[in-house]
Amino acid sequence: MKLENEKAPEPQQERNESGKSKMSRRELLKLSAAAGTGMFVGMGGMGAFMSFSGILKSSSPSQEPSPAAKDNQTSQTSVAGSIPFYGTKQAGIATPPQKYMCFAAFDIVHADRMKLEQLCKTWTDYSANMTAGKSVGKANLEGLAPPDDTGETHELPPAQLTITFGFGPTLFRKDGVDRFGLAAKQPDELVDIPAMPGDALTEQESGGDVCIQACSDDPVVSFHAIRNLARVAQGTAKIRWVQEGFLSAPDGQTPRNLFGFKDGTANNELENDQAMERYVWASPSNNPLWMTGGTYLAVRKIRMFIDEWDQTALQKQEATFGRQKESGAPFGKKNEADAVSMRHIPTDSHVWLARGTGTKLWRRSYSYSRGLDATSGDLDAGLLFISFQQSIKNQFIPMLSILAQHDALNKYTSHLSSAVFACPPGAQEGSFIGEALFR
Amino acid sequence: MKLENEKAPEPQQERNESGKSKMSRRELLKLSAAAGTGMFVGMGGMGAFMSFSGILKSSSPSQEPSPAAKDNQTSQTSVAGSIPFYGTKQAGIATPPQKYMCFAAFDIVHADRMKLEQLCKTWTDYSANMTAGKSVGKANLEGLAPPDDTGETHELPPAQLTITFGFGPTLFRKDGVDRFGLAAKQPDELVDIPAMPGDALTEQESGGDVCIQACSDDPVVSFHAIRNLARVAQGTAKIRWVQEGFLSAPDGQTPRNLFGFKDGTANNELENDQAMERYVWASPSNNPLWMTGGTYLAVRKIRMFIDEWDQTALQKQEATFGRQKESGAPFGKKNEADAVSMRHIPTDSHVWLARGTGTKLWRRSYSYSRGLDATSGDLDAGLLFISFQQSIKNQFIPMLSILAQHDALNKYTSHLSSAVFACPPGAQEGSFIGEALFR
Repeated sequence: MKLENEKAPEPQQERNESGKSKMSRRELLKLSAAAGTGMFVGMGGMGAFMSFSGILKSSSPSQEPSPAAKDNQTSQTSVAGSIPFYGTKQAGIATPPQKYMCFAAFDIVHADRMKLEQLCKTWTDYSANMTAGKSVGKANLEGLAPPDDTGETHELPPAQLTITFGFGPTLFRKDGVDRFGLAAKQPDELVDIPAMPGDALTEQESGGDVCIQACSDDPVVSFHAIRNLARVAQGTAKIRWVQEGFLSAPDGQTPRNLFGFKDGTANNELENDQAMERYVWASPSNNPLWMTGGTYLAVRKIRMFIDEWDQTALQKQEATFGRQKESGAPFGKKNEADAVSMRHIPTDSHVWLARGTGTKLWRRSYSYSRGLDATSGDLDAGLLFISFQQSIKNQFIPMLSILAQHDALNKYTSHLSSAVFACPPGAQEGSFIGEALFR
Repeated sequence: MKLENEKAPEPQQERNESGKSKMSRRELLKLSAAAGTGMFVGMGGMGAFMSFSGILKSSSPSQEPSPAAKDNQTSQTSVAGSIPFYGTKQAGIATPPQKYMCFAAFDIVHADRMKLEQLCKTWTDYSANMTAGKSVGKANLEGLAPPDDTGETHELPPAQLTITFGFGPTLFRKDGVDRFGLAAKQPDELVDIPAMPGDALTEQESGGDVCIQACSDDPVVSFHAIRNLARVAQGTAKIRWVQEGFLSAPDGQTPRNLFGFKDGTANNELENDQAMERYVWASPSNNPLWMTGGTYLAVRKIRMFIDEWDQTALQKQEATFGRQKESGAPFGKKNEADAVSMRHIPTDSHVWLARGTGTKLWRRSYSYSRGLDATSGDLDAGLLFISFQQSIKNQFIPMLSILAQHDALNKYTSHLSSAVFACPPGAQEGSFIGEALFR
């Protein structure tokens, strides 16, 4: 295989400002090999990347669904502005990203498998209703009981709501205990992310037995979904942590992250069925049957030190990313879509390292802001990084390891939350989410 | 004056569930009189109210601006989807509410009047640019300095951005010190809100020398505005507290709050110039000249205990509000727009008390949610209540006092933040926001 539009960069060993050694291509190759993941280096065209931000290009509701989103078109009647919940794949993965996300991780508080199974059934029911723009539960016209639905979306359209479920490692085994008799079913690809250099994780805002990602074009609709799913789970599951996010871009353009850079440019390399099968959807050859049509979700809440970043010279900002700020073009090129030329980019830049890691992730991240940081008094804002991939073990962790050690961006970021989940295939009508896991 | 469509309710004294006494009309009358504010009771048609939520009906950008929003149409060229910053009145007050708000209160950290004045000039400049969809500052093509604009809205339209400024009591005098030589100019109408029953205020999230309210139809645009105004203020002003909010309703319909109730139905009683002059815009007769064309802003961040609310029977919810949940109709009526019949409503209901207080506020509130409450683990969500009125002293405080003592809703809410600000008139091109205050 040969590189597109570029020669291999010269191996080099430099020191960056902070005195940390930059990484040469050769070193990166060794590191990838050591990680034992079959990652390969420097393949520009086929080439690998992991964008820091990973915000997909946003699409208007009227646009064609992406290839995998089509999997979700079943026989159920579709409401205008709605995305069917039932399908062979879960919606909210290949679906073009909506404008808002409410992401919640839950702890299952009862070690009762039947209750857990019942909750998955109810959650399926509720999700099918909400994604179709309906209320959950019964109307309760007498008024003697609390209403089933909390009501704040009563007149609102479904706003492209998708609800996506995932199962964390602790659902299979927690503190060595197989609470639900599911330990034997934990996929090899689903492993915890080890501690990384620079981690500043809060345990209470990391992990979780189950995750629910509610994306839509209306923050009220996303909030309502998580709120009602949490409410009906009372006694069985409780929210462990929750984070909302937003993104915005003119149709067809790449959104910018809160560092002001276009981010997610390279994601379109995965926008075809073959690439999605190769990098994102669980491979039948090394997965339990219940994961057929599923995928693995990794989430990192990444604080961005925007106050420090905003004091950094433009040239330094661009060298840190490896792209021009205004145009989004790679160094040495003119347009955002131009192929990356590895020899023009600093070897500790985000793009250089990310391109060099040799695999691809399907990224679906959102910006967040949540008031002021209590300690510094600065704006507490950043990125809820979310990616979907075939393997946490062989794709996500090796990539994160390299970036956590060498990425020049690390000076301006801190990872606050971390979690991984196995997202089962979509549910069919009459079935429920994750049913095959319990059989 | 006579009541519309109703007889006066019978005076009564009841006990509600929590054992607190409900308030009769007669008692309310006495209380109003005691407050010394000339408030009057039970005037259905002209009648007073203070809606708990106070979310205005949302309007699409293509709709006619409200009467007072027209004041902002000056000779400056208007960009599509933009609302001019310059005008006789500030935008963001009578403007139909956009979908997102980022509200920030600032402390002025230097006791230097010239610096403060210069900051107001720069803020005016920045605001005029951002509301027109432009970047702030210079392009910095050489890249040797940090960019003036943080860049995340580079391709985004202005999204109806409005930026509204207000001056808090502490700008005029703080801890007895007249830091800026402005003490003599503090309006009589601008007074601190005294402690209220049930307050759970955080000092660090209350008050502020200056406030900036950035509303738009895009959360990135609102966030970018506050971020860049905070950044250019470095060394002179620092964000004290910040809260984002959202609202959503189909065009022309009343939005629902997070209790699921339509809220803000009665706000349309103010949607004419005469009512705005009478209740909202500063009266020339008892204001310093620099406030001509201005108004007073009150903000209360109100936590809503949605978990507790969600366990409450529908009938109880409706009796607490005094309206039907689904239709929004007042008790005893069929449609949302029907006149309120005071005798049909429990005397400790929100609508009964609010209607009875005898004056009107122009409400422009947003829902908020911000993760989990650290203590309870419940969703931390509620309302960023914002109202504009002629007088904090004679309108807002008396109303709040009555509601804080008697409103059945108080069982489900807690006030976390509180602040008041004098919003000066709009700036003309060549002038700057608050210029008359400094002359």
